[in-house]
Amino acid sequence: MKGNVIVGQSGGPTAAINSSLAGVYRTAIDRGAKKVYGMLHGIEGLLKENYIDLSEHIRNDLDVELLKRTPAAYLGSCRYKLPDIHKDMEIYKKIFEILDKLEIEALVYIGGNDSMDTIKKLSDYAILTGSEIRFIGCPKTIDNDLALTDHTPGYGSAAKYIGTSVKEVIRDSLCLEYSGGVVTIIEIMGRNAGWLTGASILAKGEDCDGPDLIYLPEITFDLKKFEAKVKKLVEQKSSVVVCVSEGIHDKDGKYICELGNNSDFVDAFGHKQLTGTASFLANYIGNKLGCKTRGIELSTLQRAGSHLASRVDILEAYQVGGAAVLAADEGDTGKMVVLVRHSDDPYQCGTEVKDVHKIANDEKLVPKEWISKDGSYITDDFITYVRPLIQGDVSPIMVDGIPRHLYRPTKK
Amino acid sequence: MKGNVIVGQSGGPTAAINSSLAGVYRTAIDRGAKKVYGMLHGIEGLLKENYIDLSEHIRNDLDVELLKRTPAAYLGSCRYKLPDIHKDMEIYKKIFEILDKLEIEALVYIGGNDSMDTIKKLSDYAILTGSEIRFIGCPKTIDNDLALTDHTPGYGSAAKYIGTSVKEVIRDSLCLEYSGGVVTIIEIMGRNAGWLTGASILAKGEDCDGPDLIYLPEITFDLKKFEAKVKKLVEQKSSVVVCVSEGIHDKDGKYICELGNNSDFVDAFGHKQLTGTASFLANYIGNKLGCKTRGIELSTLQRAGSHLASRVDILEAYQVGGAAVLAADEGDTGKMVVLVRHSDDPYQCGTEVKDVHKIANDEKLVPKEWISKDGSYITDDFITYVRPLIQGDVSPIMVDGIPRHLYRPTKK
Repeated sequence: MKGNVIVGQSGGPTAAINSSLAGVYRTAIDRGAKKVYGMLHGIEGLLKENYIDLSEHIRNDLDVELLKRTPAAYLGSCRYKLPDIHKDMEIYKKIFEILDKLEIEALVYIGGNDSMDTIKKLSDYAILTGSEIRFIGCPKTIDNDLALTDHTPGYGSAAKYIGTSVKEVIRDSLCLEYSGGVVTIIEIMGRNAGWLTGASILAKGEDCDGPDLIYLPEITFDLKKFEAKVKKLVEQKSSVVVCVSEGIHDKDGKYICELGNNSDFVDAFGHKQLTGTASFLANYIGNKLGCKTRGIELSTLQRAGSHLASRVDILEAYQVGGAAVLAADEGDTGKMVVLVRHSDDPYQCGTEVKDVHKIANDEKLVPKEWISKDGSYITDDFITYVRPLIQGDVSPIMVDGIPRHLYRPTKK
Repeated sequence: MKGNVIVGQSGGPTAAINSSLAGVYRTAIDRGAKKVYGMLHGIEGLLKENYIDLSEHIRNDLDVELLKRTPAAYLGSCRYKLPDIHKDMEIYKKIFEILDKLEIEALVYIGGNDSMDTIKKLSDYAILTGSEIRFIGCPKTIDNDLALTDHTPGYGSAAKYIGTSVKEVIRDSLCLEYSGGVVTIIEIMGRNAGWLTGASILAKGEDCDGPDLIYLPEITFDLKKFEAKVKKLVEQKSSVVVCVSEGIHDKDGKYICELGNNSDFVDAFGHKQLTGTASFLANYIGNKLGCKTRGIELSTLQRAGSHLASRVDILEAYQVGGAAVLAADEGDTGKMVVLVRHSDDPYQCGTEVKDVHKIANDEKLVPKEWISKDGSYITDDFITYVRPLIQGDVSPIMVDGIPRHLYRPTKK
């Protein structure tokens, strides 16, 4: 490379997004980039000329290893969508002025759907104006809902966290014997796509029956049918564990978590309050069946749990970061790196680049045929798909009993 | 030993209680016990003659290692309190008949306050009736609220999980930049004792500022003062993280989580609903300060997270199990094994036995002088106390990407 590289991170944090950052940095240096800049808080920060020289932050091999093990976006994230080019040319002018000033040859943006939209617009603008700067997207999202790529970095680590945590909760529930049974409802992220909730099946194995019911948002949720299923299970077992996606909804498209607000309840401050899906269903089942219930939300823990990252995921994230730089150096622009799976077992997977115009704003859902007919479980095809992605561990670097991260001092 | 040993588990599950079970089993076998029985679901199960021969379940060294890494009570737990001896002699007669039939020489009960009450009553009854069976208590509780012992097995692993998870959540919160800031409220277990919530301080280190505020249940919680503190912090930082105990309460002793129910809100089924402390405070702050907030409950994950267990904790739990058998074999009864700390750094800790009459039903709280004057943080003394307890790791035995546990098939 002759010029400089700039890299940004965007959208929701994951356990693997910093491994892609490490991959971008290392590969850019290896290929002769003079400077590798990191934009702070994505394109939004770049517009305010907030960026850092990464070589001042990633000083040695240990820092690279720490970065790979640091959850959330090291550079800070944003949720900023560029306007259409014809609607606000000025903003593009400004971005390209900054990029030219920094002598940028390639811009890599690590993120999900919105970030790929950014890559698409910037590369379109470059073509329109004859700029030689190259723009490459690097996929990242725990939601695994990006089109064209077999899976997205970040998903495997979240899946491993979910499988492990659900198994531990099942063990916990099993050992408490309540007359009438205990029903545990676990709420997992995913508004429209059930990839994360499906990963709860990973709790199942020779030593664990796994969840009893799994509900993805791809399927309409029927409260009455759900109640009947749980009732039958409670008659058979002392502990019933149900995994639900936060995005499950009824036939009218209304989120289940909104059903708790049918009454005119407002909190002490006059605001309507959203009850979580798990706590709503736990209350519902408790009232209907008269058994003990509990609701558990895996919350942001599931996307930040880098202490339990998947080795396959962290390595692929790194690899994808490197492939983005490589593609730019070879002249590509307006492309996203994708993961292409060659075989499940032994697992083999490589990278390619695809036109970002075919990816942006498209949402990949769990195939209907991977969901059981009555919509309350998933099939073995799902397991075959997800199992390779959670293999191997990345031992945290423990300092005084707690995982060490790479730290970037911040101020408001 | 000449006779047999029986062991039970009781109260809330932890990540270390099965390591104590392993310690009891191994030491009893080593000291010549012919049989080691495990009561299923504690004394409640024993009364129904539900027990197993542990040698059929723990078949080899690998099983011992798996058991140490299996969260929750392998034998099943219960929350059963024995009646006073003079009120119901029959129940004691029945228990001793079963124990005599099984040729029990020593009964070890692993649990918290209620379990020590069981040991006290059973040993008292033995003295009253001239039985030679010995009864020893083995401390266990994530709450760390047992008297006389420096700390309880189970606490260290929960503390390590909390410190690590809070740090990951802080990292996650930091990287998202919202105008007006984001306030994250993390709810941690502990109704009356703040040991677990205090452990959130472990997130603090060279690479992390740790939580901004920490509220233990030992101190009266003042909502207005809390709001003022958060307001000031939001003006200074873009991310504010607050850790609160589920048991924080106002000056009238009313739990903060109950404040959300001042209105006449009932859910769709006519039942009053308890809002969690974190979600109540998140809503409160959001409404008052107009900033983005989120509430996170560490829920049962914090007591079942054996994949992140502390090595010190798991080894001490094993050691304490062994010491219980040893004490019984040497003729002790009506005693609990306690951990005695000889030094903080280098950490040195040994076991002793103490009279269970001095322990049962007594609750150890965090000393007031370990809490900051305004009640919103904790002191270095707390860190010095907890730090040694989270040292070292117990690598999970991973099978196909997920930690393997020792499995006991159950049926209703």
